[in-house]
Amino acid sequence: MGEVFLDRDVLSGEDEERLAALAAEVRELTEAMVHTRVSPAEAASVAAEVAALTARLNAARRDRPPYGTVGANGLDRQIANPVTGRLNPIAPPVNFEVCEDGIVRAEFTLPSVYEGPPTFVHGGVSAMIMDQVLGMAAAATGTPGMTATLETRYRRPTPLGVPLTVEAKASRVEGRKIYADGTICGPDGRVTVEASAMFIAPQIRPDAL
Amino acid sequence: MGEVFLDRDVLSGEDEERLAALAAEVRELTEAMVHTRVSPAEAASVAAEVAALTARLNAARRDRPPYGTVGANGLDRQIANPVTGRLNPIAPPVNFEVCEDGIVRAEFTLPSVYEGPPTFVHGGVSAMIMDQVLGMAAAATGTPGMTATLETRYRRPTPLGVPLTVEAKASRVEGRKIYADGTICGPDGRVTVEASAMFIAPQIRPDAL
Repeated sequence: MGEVFLDRDVLSGEDEERLAALAAEVRELTEAMVHTRVSPAEAASVAAEVAALTARLNAARRDRPPYGTVGANGLDRQIANPVTGRLNPIAPPVNFEVCEDGIVRAEFTLPSVYEGPPTFVHGGVSAMIMDQVLGMAAAATGTPGMTATLETRYRRPTPLGVPLTVEAKASRVEGRKIYADGTICGPDGRVTVEASAMFIAPQIRPDAL
Repeated sequence: MGEVFLDRDVLSGEDEERLAALAAEVRELTEAMVHTRVSPAEAASVAAEVAALTARLNAARRDRPPYGTVGANGLDRQIANPVTGRLNPIAPPVNFEVCEDGIVRAEFTLPSVYEGPPTFVHGGVSAMIMDQVLGMAAAATGTPGMTATLETRYRRPTPLGVPLTVEAKASRVEGRKIYADGTICGPDGRVTVEASAMFIAPQIRPDAL
């Protein structure tokens, strides 16, 4: 099943594609779940079938989620991440692109499972997406870190079901601290959410090398 | 299927229980998905079965997710919410309790689907949970609002797979602005995440009454 990286499995491209296809189906099931009004008997019957599929997947199980894929673009560690991981069915369908100028961006549309106020994206979901994109912008400086502070400002409600744009860029690096800023914009180009974050790069302990 | 509230279906307790049981199974499937190392053929076979179950659930579909349940504790609007909704398979298993003193709290344990840095909760997931608990603390004042600002401070990594505590309380209400603060603590009682938020209560337009 591929190499091991930091005690995690690293997948082949083929394995990743097959599991991403499965994750996409589980996403559809999740969306169907929050909308269904089937009878109690049918819901119970589907639940039993889901449990049987869970058992089939657990028949061959990793100790930890896989951590990346070795491909043409090098090691991508995001494949099971809860915000952008293709292999993680809870992740919103956000595929970030890291541009040469250090800007990280994505276009995406959120379905109803991410709803907070009626017809709008949950504020916590927007914050989660901002943490991810700001962290990727920080990492694009060459100094990845863990979030130390995240400040999210909500300018107007973010609508579900329409194309949104998220963008972020690091503003400065001071020693182990990396600062980044970003926005989510609605289809009219107006900013709905602004965020700023500070990340701290881990100290590399000699015994970890 | 029950009454309609703000164009949403309101479920009976029995319907809620049956759908919550189904959502719990979809959560297990999601967790199995990020750990599975079944063969490509088996993954494709399971994906086809998942698609068939999605079709069964979509055979009777609501236009919008259900919005609450009428029960002994009144209308609970959180049942399909992406952070705490029993009916939403992406929601972490966090069951908030609103105490009489206005404190909102929950004990919970997060599985690997919420992982950011290896073995730790994704910073964005912590922010998402804080937005929800702070919003509930704001609403407990009697003046619910939409998030205007959310500031999250990460004191130390939040571990996966161990009991965590989240707690929040409103600090003050100034006109339509409600302020709240909260924390996530690890099993040793030490704060891992602190957050503060300001919510703004919507203006009620006469034409909305």
